Amino acid sequence: NMSKKIAVLPGDGIGPEIVREALKVLDCLRQEFDVAVETEEALVGGAAYDATGTPLPPETLELAKAADAVLLGAVGGPRWEPLDYSVRPERALLGLRSELGLFANLRPAVLYPQLADASTLKPEVVSGLDILIVRELTGGIYFGKPRGVRTLDDGERVGINTLIYNESEIRRIAQVAFDTAMKRGKRLCSVDKANVLECTELWREVVTEVGRDYPAVELSHMYVDNAAMQLVRAPKQFDVMVTTNLFGDILSDCAAMLTGSIGMLPSASLDEKGKGMYEPIHGSAPDIAGRGIANPLATILSLGMLFRYTFHDEDIAARIDKAVEAALDSGVRTADIWSEGTRKVSTAEMGDAVVAAL
Amino acid sequence: NMSKKIAVLPGDGIGPEIVREALKVLDCLRQEFDVAVETEEALVGGAAYDATGTPLPPETLELAKAADAVLLGAVGGPRWEPLDYSVRPERALLGLRSELGLFANLRPAVLYPQLADASTLKPEVVSGLDILIVRELTGGIYFGKPRGVRTLDDGERVGINTLIYNESEIRRIAQVAFDTAMKRGKRLCSVDKANVLECTELWREVVTEVGRDYPAVELSHMYVDNAAMQLVRAPKQFDVMVTTNLFGDILSDCAAMLTGSIGMLPSASLDEKGKGMYEPIHGSAPDIAGRGIANPLATILSLGMLFRYTFHDEDIAARIDKAVEAALDSGVRTADIWSEGTRKVSTAEMGDAVVAAL
Ligand SMILES: CC(C)[C@H](C(=O)O)[C@@H](O)C(=O)O
Ligand SMILES: CC(C)[C@H](C(=O)O)[C@@H](O)C(=O)O
Repeated sequence: NMSKKIAVLPGDGIGPEIVREALKVLDCLRQEFDVAVETEEALVGGAAYDATGTPLPPETLELAKAADAVLLGAVGGPRWEPLDYSVRPERALLGLRSELGLFANLRPAVLYPQLADASTLKPEVVSGLDILIVRELTGGIYFGKPRGVRTLDDGERVGINTLIYNESEIRRIAQVAFDTAMKRGKRLCSVDKANVLECTELWREVVTEVGRDYPAVELSHMYVDNAAMQLVRAPKQFDVMVTTNLFGDILSDCAAMLTGSIGMLPSASLDEKGKGMYEPIHGSAPDIAGRGIANPLATILSLGMLFRYTFHDEDIAARIDKAVEAALDSGVRTADIWSEGTRKVSTAEMGDAVVAAL
Repeated sequence: NMSKKIAVLPGDGIGPEIVREALKVLDCLRQEFDVAVETEEALVGGAAYDATGTPLPPETLELAKAADAVLLGAVGGPRWEPLDYSVRPERALLGLRSELGLFANLRPAVLYPQLADASTLKPEVVSGLDILIVRELTGGIYFGKPRGVRTLDDGERVGINTLIYNESEIRRIAQVAFDTAMKRGKRLCSVDKANVLECTELWREVVTEVGRDYPAVELSHMYVDNAAMQLVRAPKQFDVMVTTNLFGDILSDCAAMLTGSIGMLPSASLDEKGKGMYEPIHGSAPDIAGRGIANPLATILSLGMLFRYTFHDEDIAARIDKAVEAALDSGVRTADIWSEGTRKVSTAEMGDAVVAAL
């Protein structure tokens, strides 16, 4: 049982505060449950830019590559927005995804019954909501070339990006989606714009082909505009959704917001071998950074996903999930999920509540 | 006061039924208010394919070009889905947009107080909702080249589409959006993905430049993933939104669904001179076609937009809008918007109710 290594990248804004609580949970797991995991921290995002002039320093990338998994807080903030694109904090995210080959992004949108009121949707529409969006993360229009802004002969500028997928990129993300559906409700909805974009016509074809290997999974296809509608109209119709990088970016944020508590939602980005980067889906929230009021639960749940998907330790993963539920059941809430009748606590107190529940 | 001409394209599914009611309204306007408007019908979509082998016959395109405005019902349905792309009903829509130069698509998302319950969102989140989405309609990834599916030397297929905008395309849609904002709440939110896509970095730059000519309009920028979130979280923060063809497709459907009654929402697609094509945002609803239960109000309101934006007849436009409101106030409802305590009526009865209110 050799010790495994997690690269810890706290990042910017509330990143360091929320990661600290996840590490508290990890410490407890080490002490109480003999979990053999080392951690090593490195700079990423704006913090890395400030210290080294680049948001993804070579040492950070090397550490991330060498480690068994990566736990990331959040990157970005208004301080770095005026910077040139090439060194903006989000470049670090895109760089890590691409360099580590993290093509499969799993984004759950789960409504915790304890937080049902937080949603802007009517309770009957979202109660029990449990969607998993599988987003392709290293291809599509995010990385396609040619790209850039050019000046034509007549002096006019023209901006270009390229949406491109080859069969094998589609096949491997489809396989992840079908495998995931097999472990859940066995329903998969593939989202495309095949009536307009030939690239996603190929997407639909290849997903359908892959589906022949998964006869137990009920596969459907939906256009992206309709998917955005259906998420608002009747989100509980979905089990697993699979889609392109850009559509996944849009739909997963929409789905997350249906729950009303994005401070609760973790994510996993996996490579072909199950190595992964884990992070909360929320941002760096610079407006509340340093005040000790951020919600650490999404980061703690990201650690849970890390144990589930990379360490294949379902026992510990389930323990973390249950401890988070128990903390909620005990009535403690950070400010973002607080409501009448519950007890408002700090970031650290919320971390302590999870540790106590472990 | 020469007579103007509307090309009427009923299309497929419920198209003919709902267009019939709009024509009833037009007849009444002719008789009671001396409105000098001729109409001429033509085939489009699946109906045109069945009759002629193409969804957009040359006669239809010529009529649409020659007319002062186009009123369209809806196109498409499962019968034509197995067809080759080149002759599918939606090609007719894309062809009309492109051939007529209808680059500015205006899609209101308005919650009628009479139908507040229909929304899946909590009343306090959506009551009074009144957003207008300005979608670029003849450019971007919908029309960019290169496009298609190719087979590489190693036998693998690859699918490609191109997102492309030049400055003048962005400038003209931005101008429409700012002009529209000036007539409304003077707030414009431009939606892009400038942190990843260079093409939309140019979009943001040009929209900002155009904004200098509209100092009275408060301009903001938002990433598309955040916009999808904010539409669910707090949609009333928006007045006018402007965005690319693809993002507009997704966000306008999401915004429409916030109202819970897409049977109520019209749309306008305008060229540089204000000539336009007008259609309900809902589809051809093949499941209820021919049963006389479809909601004709979105089509009737589309006729209202036609008078407003192409005939510049605000008086008649406002009359139509008010007649629709009066019909709702009288308690009649088609099945899609029916609720306890209101009276369920047919498509024709709803048309009659609007005519009566005129
Ligand atoms: C920050 C940005 C580059 C990123 C993305 O678009 O993928 C973010 O929105 C996300 O979804 O993780
Ligand atoms: C039918 C389809 C081609 C069309 C589009 O994508 O523009 C539709 O979704 C719309 O929004 O009018």
